[in-house]
Amino acid sequence: MDFAHSEKARHYINAVGTFIQQNIAPCEKQILSEYQQCTEDFSQWFVSEKITALKQQAKQAGLWNLFLPDAKLGQGLSCLEYAPVAELTGRSLIAPEIFNCNAPDTGNMEVLYHFGSTEQKQQWLMPLLAGDIRSVFFMTEPDVASSDATNMQATIDIQGDKLILNGRKWWSTGLGHPDAKVGIFMGLSNPENDKHQQHSMVLVPLDAHGFSIKRMLSAYGQLDAPYGHGEAEFNNVEVPLSNLIGGPGHGFAIAQGRLGPGRIHHCMRAIGAAEHALALAMKRGLSRTAFGKPLLKLGGNLERVAEARMAIDQARLLTLNAAWKIDNLGVKQAMTEISAIKVVVPSMLEKVVDMAIQIHGGGGMSDDFPLAHFMAMARALRLADGPDEVHKAMVAKLELAKYRELA
Amino acid sequence: MDFAHSEKARHYINAVGTFIQQNIAPCEKQILSEYQQCTEDFSQWFVSEKITALKQQAKQAGLWNLFLPDAKLGQGLSCLEYAPVAELTGRSLIAPEIFNCNAPDTGNMEVLYHFGSTEQKQQWLMPLLAGDIRSVFFMTEPDVASSDATNMQATIDIQGDKLILNGRKWWSTGLGHPDAKVGIFMGLSNPENDKHQQHSMVLVPLDAHGFSIKRMLSAYGQLDAPYGHGEAEFNNVEVPLSNLIGGPGHGFAIAQGRLGPGRIHHCMRAIGAAEHALALAMKRGLSRTAFGKPLLKLGGNLERVAEARMAIDQARLLTLNAAWKIDNLGVKQAMTEISAIKVVVPSMLEKVVDMAIQIHGGGGMSDDFPLAHFMAMARALRLADGPDEVHKAMVAKLELAKYRELA
Amino acid sequence: MDFAHSEKARHYINAVGTFIQQNIAPCEKQILSEYQQCTEDFSQWFVSEKITALKQQAKQAGLWNLFLPDAKLGQGLSCLEYAPVAELTGRSLIAPEIFNCNAPDTGNMEVLYHFGSTEQKQQWLMPLLAGDIRSVFFMTEPDVASSDATNMQATIDIQGDKLILNGRKWWSTGLGHPDAKVGIFMGLSNPENDKHQQHSMVLVPLDAHGFSIKRMLSAYGQLDAPYGHGEAEFNNVEVPLSNLIGGPGHGFAIAQGRLGPGRIHHCMRAIGAAEHALALAMKRGLSRTAFGKPLLKLGGNLERVAEARMAIDQARLLTLNAAWKIDNLGVKQAMTEISAIKVVVPSMLEKVVDMAIQIHGGGGMSDDFPLAHFMAMARALRLADGPDEVHKAMVAKLELAKYRELA
Amino acid sequence: MDFAHSEKARHYINAVGTFIQQNIAPCEKQILSEYQQCTEDFSQWFVSEKITALKQQAKQAGLWNLFLPDAKLGQGLSCLEYAPVAELTGRSLIAPEIFNCNAPDTGNMEVLYHFGSTEQKQQWLMPLLAGDIRSVFFMTEPDVASSDATNMQATIDIQGDKLILNGRKWWSTGLGHPDAKVGIFMGLSNPENDKHQQHSMVLVPLDAHGFSIKRMLSAYGQLDAPYGHGEAEFNNVEVPLSNLIGGPGHGFAIAQGRLGPGRIHHCMRAIGAAEHALALAMKRGLSRTAFGKPLLKLGGNLERVAEARMAIDQARLLTLNAAWKIDNLGVKQAMTEISAIKVVVPSMLEKVVDMAIQIHGGGGMSDDFPLAHFMAMARALRLADGPDEVHKAMVAKLELAKYRELA
Repeated sequence: MDFAHSEKARHYINAVGTFIQQNIAPCEKQILSEYQQCTEDFSQWFVSEKITALKQQAKQAGLWNLFLPDAKLGQGLSCLEYAPVAELTGRSLIAPEIFNCNAPDTGNMEVLYHFGSTEQKQQWLMPLLAGDIRSVFFMTEPDVASSDATNMQATIDIQGDKLILNGRKWWSTGLGHPDAKVGIFMGLSNPENDKHQQHSMVLVPLDAHGFSIKRMLSAYGQLDAPYGHGEAEFNNVEVPLSNLIGGPGHGFAIAQGRLGPGRIHHCMRAIGAAEHALALAMKRGLSRTAFGKPLLKLGGNLERVAEARMAIDQARLLTLNAAWKIDNLGVKQAMTEISAIKVVVPSMLEKVVDMAIQIHGGGGMSDDFPLAHFMAMARALRLADGPDEVHKAMVAKLELAKYRELA
Repeated sequence: MDFAHSEKARHYINAVGTFIQQNIAPCEKQILSEYQQCTEDFSQWFVSEKITALKQQAKQAGLWNLFLPDAKLGQGLSCLEYAPVAELTGRSLIAPEIFNCNAPDTGNMEVLYHFGSTEQKQQWLMPLLAGDIRSVFFMTEPDVASSDATNMQATIDIQGDKLILNGRKWWSTGLGHPDAKVGIFMGLSNPENDKHQQHSMVLVPLDAHGFSIKRMLSAYGQLDAPYGHGEAEFNNVEVPLSNLIGGPGHGFAIAQGRLGPGRIHHCMRAIGAAEHALALAMKRGLSRTAFGKPLLKLGGNLERVAEARMAIDQARLLTLNAAWKIDNLGVKQAMTEISAIKVVVPSMLEKVVDMAIQIHGGGGMSDDFPLAHFMAMARALRLADGPDEVHKAMVAKLELAKYRELA
Repeated sequence: MDFAHSEKARHYINAVGTFIQQNIAPCEKQILSEYQQCTEDFSQWFVSEKITALKQQAKQAGLWNLFLPDAKLGQGLSCLEYAPVAELTGRSLIAPEIFNCNAPDTGNMEVLYHFGSTEQKQQWLMPLLAGDIRSVFFMTEPDVASSDATNMQATIDIQGDKLILNGRKWWSTGLGHPDAKVGIFMGLSNPENDKHQQHSMVLVPLDAHGFSIKRMLSAYGQLDAPYGHGEAEFNNVEVPLSNLIGGPGHGFAIAQGRLGPGRIHHCMRAIGAAEHALALAMKRGLSRTAFGKPLLKLGGNLERVAEARMAIDQARLLTLNAAWKIDNLGVKQAMTEISAIKVVVPSMLEKVVDMAIQIHGGGGMSDDFPLAHFMAMARALRLADGPDEVHKAMVAKLELAKYRELA
Repeated sequence: MDFAHSEKARHYINAVGTFIQQNIAPCEKQILSEYQQCTEDFSQWFVSEKITALKQQAKQAGLWNLFLPDAKLGQGLSCLEYAPVAELTGRSLIAPEIFNCNAPDTGNMEVLYHFGSTEQKQQWLMPLLAGDIRSVFFMTEPDVASSDATNMQATIDIQGDKLILNGRKWWSTGLGHPDAKVGIFMGLSNPENDKHQQHSMVLVPLDAHGFSIKRMLSAYGQLDAPYGHGEAEFNNVEVPLSNLIGGPGHGFAIAQGRLGPGRIHHCMRAIGAAEHALALAMKRGLSRTAFGKPLLKLGGNLERVAEARMAIDQARLLTLNAAWKIDNLGVKQAMTEISAIKVVVPSMLEKVVDMAIQIHGGGGMSDDFPLAHFMAMARALRLADGPDEVHKAMVAKLELAKYRELA
């Protein structure tokens, strides 16, 4: 394991760090307050002009698609090299998209990059990489426990050269975005197959007939406009067979392949958020006083600062180790790590943010600080992409496998 | 300690329970969804007609002002007798106000009941008891750490028969309500006195000149319309000296006296919320399946159900014990208990709700269920009315006092 | 629920408290140090003469068999009345036996009291009540997971008017005691019956042919001489059929009946131990200084004191509530509570003792203080009489039963 | 950061692993049971002949003094290279000393290696490196809170070319060993200096006049014979001035320098113990059944297995990172890490061992398994060498230092 920053990584860490500090940080608060005008009526959602300008600027500076290991389409950063960059962007609520590195578009681009046909790439991957359009991933369903992905009930009916999609999906992130043009829909296409080969992924243009957005959901009161988390209905939506990604029944295989790097990105951004929360706690806790002392020096507050530092550092090392394993041994050899960080990091973020909120008092729960938003993110991450329990079960399963002779 | 329900308590438990089940529960979801139209523009906030009708109905049924021990103005329930009633109302997000038993009006009514002059009672207590107007408590300030109440910077200038108020307050619950007519303002009036005799409480009509509402704050994204949590500015607000409650410098003494019963109410409502969250978890966890089993029977879920039950039961007994002590020994003999429940109950509620959310998946964070709201309430309760740390310090201080000879 | 102390309870609380303070506390350290001479060679174990004298004194003072509700054989204290007395004795490591109120003799006496034949009572209950002999309970077995009691493999072969016992038992508390004369053996007698009617309880004199003590076990290094926890072998041990308690297959029914009050006793003693540990922490933490302050005033120590106080008080109320339910509603109506205290109390004791040890530094782990002993007791209580997991499962099962319609 | 094993590290990992498996593991249980004969009468303590033979064998195999970075006297392993070797030895309770890598001798040898005079090295370091004698470190005192090392009251009186030592020390590990010949005594020599330059370290032969061993202490009932943890009295013990290590007042500077690598060793051994405990839990939990399933598959047990795996992996990465920093940046640049692992690792070990004990039932607390011993070690490590609270304070202090401009 060598977690040292390569020269290339150092370059991007510096460049991205500087860009955030000079260009994003100064206007973040204003952009977020623009977006606070967005209500549940998502038809009124918009993209801040500042965001558009910043994206252009980042693109011109070559700080673009950093998440993609491809040296031509992205910047050729390995998972381990991109990790500290992702951490930096995670300190900000808007930075990821400025560098075209935000979920769920990154995951969708990866799917298309690895599994898309030439036509699919041309039609959807290129404009996504250009940042011109946004995309959605339709997986979770309101009517079943999604912790068991094989519960999925939405259907893909293969009829000759057409696919007919039906079902209801929710928590489809990005669905509210004015530029959202396409989604990847996962559904049951081959019920006759083995359990993990029954589902397929299909590209759906969001103007398809029979597709409708029902509403935007809030999570801990956050609508996350202009991306949002939507509920959608697919009512006999028809798309050409060529919209199938990979082949019929490849859904889980693709999801699996997409999984590792995206997990690293999520986790590193969450670590960045934790560092930001800790920094806010330090500043607030040193600048406000009670009972004659700075808040931080009261009771067990400094112990909690230490616990935050220790938890963040451990979570980061665990994530870097997972990234290193993905890069060097492949996703299959990193299954324990990829599940472990999914459990450890969001839970660490929750604890750190909770501490920071407590130091801030009521203000910490308001939108005056990014803490409530970070908390919503942390809580959601404990569910999204498999709840804690499923990932603990995976870690345990791999531990059990070492004792196969006893089982 | 005798926690048995008196006959009177049993009567009200049954009556309130039935009323909630028959009249409130059936329309709660719809009322809450009406209120979801309320955005940060609080000038558009309104009272649901259903709420108005339900209040009328409850009043006619004699289920009104149950919190007030006075047998004439309230129903003569002791703190211990009212406790299980408060728990019942806490299962619902709207029930407390239906019975005219919602914070902060209850606390304000108690202040006026115990410390108000005859005129103050006539002018403000009576319409509050009638449920015709709503009120606000102005204490927390944005510019100082409010965990140390003596940090308060807002001023009350006594000039002859006038009081001039200046300062900025926030987290003033109820400030957004269309019927909010009056507030109790706490500020520094006597800086020459001892630390805890420098502040006074003053009644301020909300149409006073120089008073302005700056905005409504959200907590974990919840605006809590139509009550809301507001930020207000007092710019040379002038009120007659007769608006002073008690005497100059009596602020903390009044706050202290107000404290005990209100704490019981808050905590019992939170226990009700926890029971509701647990019930939702049970129902969801039994009706949804994953990996071939009901969710509840997977992994450690049933252990967490047991932990929830054990935590709720302990928290309830602790709170009933505090109520019993207040009734029988007085607030001063119940200081450990009154601080202890303030720490134990919200933290218990957080854990139970977190478990319930996890069982619900993403939906648990949305407004489809009351869980996100309960979580915001729990988190806020860890700060409101003194953060955990201050109350732990109080419990420790009282423990230390037993070893005075060693100190 | 009425947890108030009755007049009778108050009398015994005072009398026992005074007796401990005046007669036991002054010589406890010396008695414990006498017993530290006891090594694994249990043939050398002895009873301190001081203990014998104190027992005599307590008996004469009428502070004897307080655990037994029977007014003639004991003092007629209900479960709720005895609870605070048990707490007092739990502050001391030797007090319970002084009042003839120590496990496992109390449980064995209860079994004989409720289920023994007249002859069994005459032969064994009377000398036990007199404190002249000691007894053992043979249940746990080394070769199977005892968390599932139906795993029990030891056999009771009913042959005419004889019973032939075979098997191996361990963690048989009291087996090392010089006065141990009899044991209650639980084994498989009726494999043809339903799962919970296959086992019986049998009285075995410890001088029976075929019975042998293999060794004394230590728990966290504590031998707990002169009682000890032994491992024993039953090799065709023959006893008359009249030694059967209740009837064949009644083993679990008897165990169940014995369960409730004993649980209360254990838990109240553990609460007493927690109070003692907290008191030691307070005294040490106030009398020693570091970095210029008493230890207690450093970092988060006072928060931990508060958490200890809150946890102890909650655990006590939960246990008193269980006792009240047993007295007033019966064991069957108190199943949730009886399991809940079994989980909550030992875990609370662990946390409080851990805190106290931390305040004491290395000394806290040594035999200079009772803390290491309390920790061993707490840890053992999380396993003895059903591990935490089994009791959580029981609490969850009873919670599930409320939602039977959904299951 | 490059945590990859060097070729040299790999060699020693393999060799030590094989040696443990082939030579130590087969006789560990027997050796430990030999030592269980050792009681508090330490005059009877002895060294197992098997240990002596194994040491000889390891020495001949070149698996000797692996902890010492010096290529001539040790094997030239860096801190990071030795770390995984230390982890391997930590899985066993006796392996460390077989390779002459056990505390406190390693720390004492490091002190002499870095700060000893030529004569001191000749007289004491060489026989220690040869494994012929054992040594003791006299630091902690019974009469003061040792968490604040400047509390130390033992005195070193410099009188011409003599040093007169007085005081009482305890928790002096190794003091019971038959081969213990020398100790390093830390005491107050220069009260006129600044706080951290008042103490010196002095070599004391254990046959010095005025020196006496008062007793051996147990920790959670473990005497840890034949090393033991002793209490000693220094009553006008006279040694030549040349026994001073470094110079007068250098005590803390030396202690500081000794600190980093020793911390790594302790923590890596503790991680090895945790892996061993987890492995025991897996084996027991798979081979025993209850309620029709292997224990591990009941309730939340597999979640706890996952939590153990995740906690161990994080703790290991944190420790390797600390080792890497010590090797590459020096102890001063690794202060956060060196304190962090001191908090994180023992607490992780406690949790893992507690889980393993719970899976083992009563047996887990006995000496039939190494778990009770591991628990005593974990608990002691939370106190030894600075309690958790002191190290959290250090981590917090270094975090605060990043915000100096605000302080």
